[in-house]
Amino acid sequence: MTYPLQTIFEDDGAVVILDQTRLPGETAFVRLTSLEQAAHAIRVMQVRGAPLIGATAAYGVALALQGGVALEHALSVLGATRPTAVNLRWALNRMQACLAAVPGERRVEMAWAEARAIAGEDVQANAAIGQHGLPLLTALPRRPLQVMTHCNAGWLATVAHGTAIAPIYAADAEGVPLHVWVSETRPRNQGLLTAWELAQAGIAHTLIADNAAGLLMMQGKVDCVIVGADRIAANGDTANKIGTYLKALAAKAHGLPFYVAAPVSTIDFDCPRGSAIPIEERAGDELGAGATPVANPAFDVTPAALIAGIITEQGVFRAGGLAALQQ
Amino acid sequence: MTYPLQTIFEDDGAVVILDQTRLPGETAFVRLTSLEQAAHAIRVMQVRGAPLIGATAAYGVALALQGGVALEHALSVLGATRPTAVNLRWALNRMQACLAAVPGERRVEMAWAEARAIAGEDVQANAAIGQHGLPLLTALPRRPLQVMTHCNAGWLATVAHGTAIAPIYAADAEGVPLHVWVSETRPRNQGLLTAWELAQAGIAHTLIADNAAGLLMMQGKVDCVIVGADRIAANGDTANKIGTYLKALAAKAHGLPFYVAAPVSTIDFDCPRGSAIPIEERAGDELGAGATPVANPAFDVTPAALIAGIITEQGVFRAGGLAALQQ
Repeated sequence: MTYPLQTIFEDDGAVVILDQTRLPGETAFVRLTSLEQAAHAIRVMQVRGAPLIGATAAYGVALALQGGVALEHALSVLGATRPTAVNLRWALNRMQACLAAVPGERRVEMAWAEARAIAGEDVQANAAIGQHGLPLLTALPRRPLQVMTHCNAGWLATVAHGTAIAPIYAADAEGVPLHVWVSETRPRNQGLLTAWELAQAGIAHTLIADNAAGLLMMQGKVDCVIVGADRIAANGDTANKIGTYLKALAAKAHGLPFYVAAPVSTIDFDCPRGSAIPIEERAGDELGAGATPVANPAFDVTPAALIAGIITEQGVFRAGGLAALQQ
Repeated sequence: MTYPLQTIFEDDGAVVILDQTRLPGETAFVRLTSLEQAAHAIRVMQVRGAPLIGATAAYGVALALQGGVALEHALSVLGATRPTAVNLRWALNRMQACLAAVPGERRVEMAWAEARAIAGEDVQANAAIGQHGLPLLTALPRRPLQVMTHCNAGWLATVAHGTAIAPIYAADAEGVPLHVWVSETRPRNQGLLTAWELAQAGIAHTLIADNAAGLLMMQGKVDCVIVGADRIAANGDTANKIGTYLKALAAKAHGLPFYVAAPVSTIDFDCPRGSAIPIEERAGDELGAGATPVANPAFDVTPAALIAGIITEQGVFRAGGLAALQQ
């Protein structure tokens, strides 16, 4: 098997996804043929990562129309799967805008074409994110370079390449010696996905408990932090996997650059600031603590002031300078 | 069964401990009759928490002498079990000082008496910590009061009462409505022990992933943080369970008081600052990540500047003002 795989692809009128709930133990694929299956895959996190959620939702619209489901119903069902990642809404808005003026008999064909375009553009955008982030990494003097990340923002979180991990892959491809500190990312342990990705790519890495991030920075073992994003407010405040904010605070305390890498589609110009971003509360049983009362917010918000730069496919921007990107 | 239990007690020439590796699923006791068994119990964390480690080590010396083992060998074996908690060394030094001048035929009896004194003083010290910490909690205006803690510094971490949780028990006994945010505390999940303790005591609590601490503070859901300590340097820098430092940084960012509660025996006046505290690196398999490379430091260091006060049995001290306690 060749890595990296693509996380989502078309196959004879169906959509095939890599089932991320079975990684890293098992590389299994799921065939989606209906709206319900696509919505389920997003909801239970068979696909996850903001860009991949967007692409899957777009394909979900194509599957819905192909199955005779009304467009508005499809948009409504898919839009309700997960609340925080804005790429979901972005992809659905784009599908709606594309399909609204298309006559009924051509809609299915156009939906597939637009979903394919969204997926293809994600691949291109992430490759560009890798290239724009590369000089930020190579500018840091230590070798091996010590990069910390959180959750999984690698190729598994996108259609291909990844966001936060794209510059790491680009640096590795350039022959830059580096090592990645991979945070476990409780409660869903997406750090194991990142460790699996990096192992496939032959990139040195070490898994840590989320709790260890501050000590490693205090001990001088980290050069920078790069994470992905699920929604970036207009002012640069960034929602990402729960625990990101603690790493950003620690990076600030130790004078380390903290970067966010995400496609422009992750920026929500309708959302003025981080406090307006809805935070998904997931089921408490994800912590595996039996009958104990549990709170399980899936994301937190890192204030723009803690972010050294936002790496997009259009270049690197100050978190406070995103207005330049508004179309 | 009545709670709180005592975590360690004597029984007919043996020492009985509550096996904390089997909690919260099972309330099981282990009978220690030899030096090796006492050292094993500390090493594998059947007993844990700095004060309880100290008491167990003291009883370990008594078991060793009773079994005909030389004092110096017992001190050496027990001293090598875990590196970070200074209470271990403090208890062993105290046993050595007490026993050095005692003739051989009276040593076993004296060792039992001194271990019993150490355990008994821990109970008294922690009760006093609860009373000294109580006004710090009641001074915070919200009801229910929202307290966050990390790891387990309840009665399970001590002979009885607990350290960080002692003021919470004291406030609850005074009828102060309160709720405790309990951090899971990866990789060993000692938060489940705290949740179990609080459930036994009927105190409202919610378990969270360690990652969620920053978001909850940002959302205004936390009034203060109280944690225990494994070693406090002379300048007030405090080693405690890994992840404590991240909570202290977040508390600082949100203007929340961050308290450390510990008996005076936790202060190491021979250790000038936090960077001189040895940090235990535990086996990577505690993260349960298979063959993935893992780093697993068990403690981190919170700088004195982030600590609003150190609650001891002798009163509350500024982290920078511990010299007053030096004997």
